Amino acid sequence: MTAIGRAEIRDRMVQAVEAVKRTNPMVGSITNTVTINLVANTQLAVGGSAAMVYLPDEAEFLVRAGGAVYVNFGTLIPIYEETLPRVARAASEAGKPWVLDPVAVGIGSMRTNLLRQFKEYRPSVIRGNASEILALAGLWELDGGSDRSNVRGVDSTDQVIAAKGAAVALARWTGGAVAVSGEMDMVTDGRIVAFSHGGSHLMKRITGSGCSLGGVVAVYAAVAPPLIAALTATAVYNLAGRRAEASASAPGSFQAAFLDELYKASAEDIADNPLDIEEVGA
Amino acid sequence: MTAIGRAEIRDRMVQAVEAVKRTNPMVGSITNTVTINLVANTQLAVGGSAAMVYLPDEAEFLVRAGGAVYVNFGTLIPIYEETLPRVARAASEAGKPWVLDPVAVGIGSMRTNLLRQFKEYRPSVIRGNASEILALAGLWELDGGSDRSNVRGVDSTDQVIAAKGAAVALARWTGGAVAVSGEMDMVTDGRIVAFSHGGSHLMKRITGSGCSLGGVVAVYAAVAPPLIAALTATAVYNLAGRRAEASASAPGSFQAAFLDELYKASAEDIADNPLDIEEVGA
Amino acid sequence: MTAIGRAEIRDRMVQAVEAVKRTNPMVGSITNTVTINLVANTQLAVGGSAAMVYLPDEAEFLVRAGGAVYVNFGTLIPIYEETLPRVARAASEAGKPWVLDPVAVGIGSMRTNLLRQFKEYRPSVIRGNASEILALAGLWELDGGSDRSNVRGVDSTDQVIAAKGAAVALARWTGGAVAVSGEMDMVTDGRIVAFSHGGSHLMKRITGSGCSLGGVVAVYAAVAPPLIAALTATAVYNLAGRRAEASASAPGSFQAAFLDELYKASAEDIADNPLDIEEVGA
Repeated sequence: MTAIGRAEIRDRMVQAVEAVKRTNPMVGSITNTVTINLVANTQLAVGGSAAMVYLPDEAEFLVRAGGAVYVNFGTLIPIYEETLPRVARAASEAGKPWVLDPVAVGIGSMRTNLLRQFKEYRPSVIRGNASEILALAGLWELDGGSDRSNVRGVDSTDQVIAAKGAAVALARWTGGAVAVSGEMDMVTDGRIVAFSHGGSHLMKRITGSGCSLGGVVAVYAAVAPPLIAALTATAVYNLAGRRAEASASAPGSFQAAFLDELYKASAEDIADNPLDIEEVGA
Repeated sequence: MTAIGRAEIRDRMVQAVEAVKRTNPMVGSITNTVTINLVANTQLAVGGSAAMVYLPDEAEFLVRAGGAVYVNFGTLIPIYEETLPRVARAASEAGKPWVLDPVAVGIGSMRTNLLRQFKEYRPSVIRGNASEILALAGLWELDGGSDRSNVRGVDSTDQVIAAKGAAVALARWTGGAVAVSGEMDMVTDGRIVAFSHGGSHLMKRITGSGCSLGGVVAVYAAVAPPLIAALTATAVYNLAGRRAEASASAPGSFQAAFLDELYKASAEDIADNPLDIEEVGA
Repeated sequence: MTAIGRAEIRDRMVQAVEAVKRTNPMVGSITNTVTINLVANTQLAVGGSAAMVYLPDEAEFLVRAGGAVYVNFGTLIPIYEETLPRVARAASEAGKPWVLDPVAVGIGSMRTNLLRQFKEYRPSVIRGNASEILALAGLWELDGGSDRSNVRGVDSTDQVIAAKGAAVALARWTGGAVAVSGEMDMVTDGRIVAFSHGGSHLMKRITGSGCSLGGVVAVYAAVAPPLIAALTATAVYNLAGRRAEASASAPGSFQAAFLDELYKASAEDIADNPLDIEEVGA
């Protein structure tokens, strides 16, 4: 089986962007309270519809009613011990696309126990920074994972490229895609590894640029397969970040400009955002 | 008894806006975590003071200490099983104005059970989109309600005008007012139905334009009767939305401009915002 | 022992600002959901790294892993009965700098019980408005405290200067610093009282200007002693507020401009922000 090429990726990214704008897919999220507003606003900006819940039966409802689900481990609360496995199981059993964001993997016992369980639910897309991807692969005992976590709060202390083996191993395990965020973003389905360029140094100076990228991956996952969803979301983030920096030189105005550019970006410009692709050996 | 006319409505809206700016009424809110920041910021922008809590006794304190209360069902957490009935009962028994926002009515068992109970507490103002108003009237077994919910996450799939019968029935049951949000907004006290015009297509592209409208209704409800409070809040939203769109063409800059226009709108301009009024037959 | 003078304060403020920008200290926060996003964004804007949690063992992790901790009492949830004492005890035992923001002290039984316990943990910095500082000193039975709370939701009904005795008594009890926010800000270590000038009337029209100041105090507390941390954070807030008001006349654009100015302020400009210092008699 031949890996997908740049031309086909471009066409399918255009289709994904247009399908979201045309169908306004509803995406349910269980996500942290720090950036929940930005997650919803970015999902709306690209053309999706957002709904957030905390309770188990409500999360299961959103799995059934929505086009995809976003599960972010940012700020755990006690009820999540019940909610998170139920939403993951429901999505997995229904074959509904879902995105896992293993924020701060390694901090706290509930986080570790839940994320360990999640291996069996095989999320369609995993998004994280390099330290999180390395630590999750380690927790799931996959190749390329790291035994000791370099997670320091919510920021990465590792380089994106250092997580390449872990990302490929995770993608092969899930059968989906993995997106590693950093100065250069890396997306893989286990067969190709794509590097997406752009963004802005100011994205590290606003909270939630990573979480909201995960939420936007889920929006595209409602209309496209995992690899295309991850590539499309990553591309629109890099495009909007670069454009926002052209008109804003500090974080407050940058955040507003970034949402504006997410909203204004055309399907063609998103699909043409610089992308380098390499095939992964077996 | 003659229904209230446009001239009197205009005068009382001017008085409401001025009373809020003069007295800075404190309004307690139990509201969702997605848009809680925008709710507080819109309440402050129009001249109110905001306080948000989750615990039952703290909510009861805010009922006693504040001028009005806002109860939004957006993101339920387990403690709400206790908090929400206690705050509704406290407001109802104290005769304190309070606003119910039955977000996503029909999703999940706790939401349904609590909202069913709320019928007896007769909220001063109910605010929702058309699907929510139809579903709440159905849940309360009132005329014009819908048996089957069209609620899809937090967005409406019904037109505002389709909820006219349900809104009138709810207002007659509570003895207060009902505000139905959509492209054109509808407000009723069961005797008149008023249609408020303006706003912006971008209000659907930022999260919380509905929730925060409910929060601002509560601010005006601290100084004015339910119908006037609902009309005033709806008018300032339509005015600020129209003005913000004139200076902002995308959601990020729109949200900042919208808060600016809420803050800058004069009492006269709010009271003069286009409004069509019709009387309802018995 | 001579109290610290203006020249030395200036030098140490410059060092604190530069140390934060150079070392990007991670600060854990347990804070309210209303302004949690702004707290994180202001911490990032001045050069820190932010991480927020709710669960007890995760909070303890952040005490160990971070440079300082911020504990804000804004929106209590049931698990905080366990989380808050554990994080305060952990910080106290580890000698890690931590900032207490006793938001709405006096509202609700859990808030009162927890804040009473906190006396023994002696926070490095206490930040609040005048009513909160008076009420906390009263709750801790210190000189200058108020028996009856004037706390009305989250806003102050007292003037900053009225809390001078309470602030000095609290600082002497903790051995740290106390920052009282208002039109003029007051900071004391129990030996000197410093008055910091600037800011904007619009800071009361956006939610979280107080909470986020507490979060930024914690960022500087990771690299500087309590008094310097409180003075530096207060100075950058007054500077950024004044500058933001020069380019923004309403709350929505003001908030974006304020974050921009926090990010752009130089160490020298922060250290030179107007400050009046007086010594306190024994």
